Amino acid sequence: MKTISESRAFGGVQGVYSHASEACDGEMTFGLFLPEEAQEGPVPVLWFLSGLTCTHENAMAKAGAQGWAAEQGIALVFPDTSPRGAGVADDPAYDLGQGAGFYVNATEAPWSPHFRMWDYLAEELPRLLFNAFPVVEEAQAITGHSMGGHGALTLAMAFPGRFRSVSAFAPIAHPTASDWGRKQFTAYLGADEAKWAPHDATLMMKKRGFDGPLLIDQGASDQFIDLLMPEALIEAIARRRQPATFRIQKGYDHSYFFVSSFMEAHVSFHAEALFG
Amino acid sequence: MKTISESRAFGGVQGVYSHASEACDGEMTFGLFLPEEAQEGPVPVLWFLSGLTCTHENAMAKAGAQGWAAEQGIALVFPDTSPRGAGVADDPAYDLGQGAGFYVNATEAPWSPHFRMWDYLAEELPRLLFNAFPVVEEAQAITGHSMGGHGALTLAMAFPGRFRSVSAFAPIAHPTASDWGRKQFTAYLGADEAKWAPHDATLMMKKRGFDGPLLIDQGASDQFIDLLMPEALIEAIARRRQPATFRIQKGYDHSYFFVSSFMEAHVSFHAEALFG
Repeated sequence: MKTISESRAFGGVQGVYSHASEACDGEMTFGLFLPEEAQEGPVPVLWFLSGLTCTHENAMAKAGAQGWAAEQGIALVFPDTSPRGAGVADDPAYDLGQGAGFYVNATEAPWSPHFRMWDYLAEELPRLLFNAFPVVEEAQAITGHSMGGHGALTLAMAFPGRFRSVSAFAPIAHPTASDWGRKQFTAYLGADEAKWAPHDATLMMKKRGFDGPLLIDQGASDQFIDLLMPEALIEAIARRRQPATFRIQKGYDHSYFFVSSFMEAHVSFHAEALFG
Repeated sequence: MKTISESRAFGGVQGVYSHASEACDGEMTFGLFLPEEAQEGPVPVLWFLSGLTCTHENAMAKAGAQGWAAEQGIALVFPDTSPRGAGVADDPAYDLGQGAGFYVNATEAPWSPHFRMWDYLAEELPRLLFNAFPVVEEAQAITGHSMGGHGALTLAMAFPGRFRSVSAFAPIAHPTASDWGRKQFTAYLGADEAKWAPHDATLMMKKRGFDGPLLIDQGASDQFIDLLMPEALIEAIARRRQPATFRIQKGYDHSYFFVSSFMEAHVSFHAEALFG
């Protein structure tokens, strides 16, 4: 593992690290914020998965999460959204290829074998993180924005007991029924829609739900809301009687200004589960 | 108007009053909490509509609202849920007749002319209230529990601009599709379902929505949840992009223990709209 940078932030350290990834067959970069408390011993950790076009860097710089995490004594991990680099397939569209991994393991050419973000986040990066840094495997929570909200919700439901709480900002909520999903799942996973189902938060909510607290914020003026389909997920949540808080925030769009406006609430929400 | 009782409560006064009602063609009773501030001048007012089997008294005694209203300087009105008395029709079932007015104007025998709770709450009781007590007509909010949540939501959407905010505890959310609704609407309004639509929060949300903040709490262990149908309303809320907070509260049932547990949050929510 290589240290790209380490900067003092809110009494702790905002680091950026890279490492050779087996899952993605190449070099991967991630951000990690460790609060001051991590100098004394391991701390709980909140994963933040980012949206389309983002690297590990966007949320690190724009989500405004470190101050609240420092206040709570929680670490933050900011993974990248796809494999990168010259040998890695890409597409001219912003919503396919690099920056648009959709948190799945691609089985189709030209995306396989690099595009394996599911295994990267479900197995490889956690292993590295818990071996190399003072963070507690037994106290994890997960959140994300847009495509990252989709990733957070599907990972949380796929691994019961792993995450104490899950939240999402304007998640892609029903990708098997949306142009933000069908295109990418066809490209990465192939035409068999049965293989898509574990990567659809609405379908996973119907099938499994989440055994812990769930918080979703959605901007009412989100320019992409028709692609996100929050109504499908919330209906599934209500039908399941899944404990949850779902908020439609008047006037907010899809940007990081929306994310940062409600970051304090999300970090507090996770802190309650992580320290509870 | 007759004063039935006035008791000191949280520095203010919890009163119970009765009056001859034209809308309900008989004597009606209501509770009114006035905070200490009402001695100095008019205060904002929060309506609390109650559920099946309740009188004006249940929420007054069990919802735990007065302390929070006193802290905010807000009045609380607790209307009855139906006309009462020897000359008023009734039914042996708990969910029809006295204690089960469903906040509509009955057009069918034997319920007409007494069962006109819609006009009573939309016109007559407000008029009396704003004439006789130091409460501000321009600063109203409304909430309710179960059948009262249904009443609060439908009144709020029917009169745009009247209520600055609306909330509900486990509302009957889609009565035209539920046994808590179809039976009563058939009895009170007749078989023509077009006349039912203005009294269905889900249908009103699809058609009109609410121009202000909306908060709904629902217990995940509510024994009546299949009759309440929260999934229909929240799906309509999300589809409309209606600014709202919807929470499914783990472990809570349909009782006043659920209501009182989240009363502070609801009173604070309304206070923000009433004083904002």
